[in-house]
Amino acid sequence: MRAPPGTRAAYGWFMPIQTRWMDNDIYGHVNNVNYYSWFDTAVARFLLDHGISELTDSPEIGLVVETQCRYFAPVAFPDALTCGLRVARIGTTSIRYELGLFREDAEAASAEAHFVHVYVDRATQRRAVPLPAALRHLAARFLT
Amino acid sequence: MRAPPGTRAAYGWFMPIQTRWMDNDIYGHVNNVNYYSWFDTAVARFLLDHGISELTDSPEIGLVVETQCRYFAPVAFPDALTCGLRVARIGTTSIRYELGLFREDAEAASAEAHFVHVYVDRATQRRAVPLPAALRHLAARFLT
Amino acid sequence: MRAPPGTRAAYGWFMPIQTRWMDNDIYGHVNNVNYYSWFDTAVARFLLDHGISELTDSPEIGLVVETQCRYFAPVAFPDALTCGLRVARIGTTSIRYELGLFREDAEAASAEAHFVHVYVDRATQRRAVPLPAALRHLAARFLT
Amino acid sequence: MRAPPGTRAAYGWFMPIQTRWMDNDIYGHVNNVNYYSWFDTAVARFLLDHGISELTDSPEIGLVVETQCRYFAPVAFPDALTCGLRVARIGTTSIRYELGLFREDAEAASAEAHFVHVYVDRATQRRAVPLPAALRHLAARFLT
Repeated sequence: MRAPPGTRAAYGWFMPIQTRWMDNDIYGHVNNVNYYSWFDTAVARFLLDHGISELTDSPEIGLVVETQCRYFAPVAFPDALTCGLRVARIGTTSIRYELGLFREDAEAASAEAHFVHVYVDRATQRRAVPLPAALRHLAARFLT
Repeated sequence: MRAPPGTRAAYGWFMPIQTRWMDNDIYGHVNNVNYYSWFDTAVARFLLDHGISELTDSPEIGLVVETQCRYFAPVAFPDALTCGLRVARIGTTSIRYELGLFREDAEAASAEAHFVHVYVDRATQRRAVPLPAALRHLAARFLT
Repeated sequence: MRAPPGTRAAYGWFMPIQTRWMDNDIYGHVNNVNYYSWFDTAVARFLLDHGISELTDSPEIGLVVETQCRYFAPVAFPDALTCGLRVARIGTTSIRYELGLFREDAEAASAEAHFVHVYVDRATQRRAVPLPAALRHLAARFLT
Repeated sequence: MRAPPGTRAAYGWFMPIQTRWMDNDIYGHVNNVNYYSWFDTAVARFLLDHGISELTDSPEIGLVVETQCRYFAPVAFPDALTCGLRVARIGTTSIRYELGLFREDAEAASAEAHFVHVYVDRATQRRAVPLPAALRHLAARFLT
């Protein structure tokens, strides 16, 4: 028996997700791959909206080292979705985000996921470095 | 000299477009391909929001026979975009949609596109059939 | 410490994977999301190439209920990649595929993943049903 | 009446294109958007395979200013496709590529497209600059 889906109350930050026509596959539901484009976007927006910009100017960047998604119920274009985010672990050089995807007014998640980032210096993209202080501070606020 | 970009006033129906992190390419702007996923979505939403559903239950479907996009200025995640739509031609068995993509509060389009659909019966997906009456009625309202 | 990447010898079926220009993201490497489009394709091809077609005519279909990927080293367009596949578990109504992604002539995987399918009847897409006999037979040949 | 599809003989350079499971949409054919990801890849590979690398080290880059595709017949995963390329126009600061997409052993194109690049200096990405000499030399060999 796998764990049941979490609810909105388990997440501390939310953003809307817009589905696209081509997200749907031949079965009329969103293909499993596209969920990750939403979670990827949610993590990026979580950072950007809180002033943590890694796009152009930081000495270190977060590399994705592990992602996972469990799918509980289908979603489909043109559903309006909401993605919830929480921080599940703050390591020395890594951070684990957990994400929940919710349809319309549903309380239970249609899917739940995690993303693990390891921080490396931008130049080599290999050597692990400590989490940026601003990120550590932000993450602590959303740590579950 | 190519024609300059149109403005919002040239379009009659609008929807917001949400950018995704992975829409950006190595140059830090949205890859040319992804614009079409937005236009594709806008046409589908235009039809759905006006009660023209081709997803499951209509005897005919619109096949895309031609698409084009002209790119005037870059857009990038996390830009909030707006897509405008107008109908440029209503044929016996085909329809031409024209689309404009606008950044934030810009008046001039960042890109303009067209999509041409030909209607065919769902079963064979080959024989052209007249535009559905409801679509013809809707299209006339947005014809430029 | 996480487990090190596996090698080609750990997989029993292989297919080439072609990278696309837009697979790359702003950092010049393939975005984490796109790996799943390859694994998704590899599982589909594994089934199709062995005569297990779920696209149009089977009474049951495999729904993806969990996917995961661990990323060990970056890959980038225009790399020529190889995807390895093995079957890790054959349940009553579910099956777990494990996948490895290899660059050029590398022995160690650049990424490793798993996909778990649960079989449901096509009509309702809800009620779990036993794995099709042909799939069970095929999977046994590639079970690790 | 629109122009009929061209044939393989009209193109001078070819590459195989691998379809992906998620390229297909709800109708069981490749979504119109995904064709552009193939053409985009073909142009990039044409340049890279002939030693014209714009990814990291050139002072100028080619920006896509117009793309178009006409769709003649559907293609679908797991089709093996071939993309043909020719150069249709070499301007002072721009170049027009034309592309044809062929199924298996078909002589007639399933789709035909064009991509227009304008060259700009990498730093500003705005000021048009002459085509790089190496590109001009290469393009002349494939000019129709």
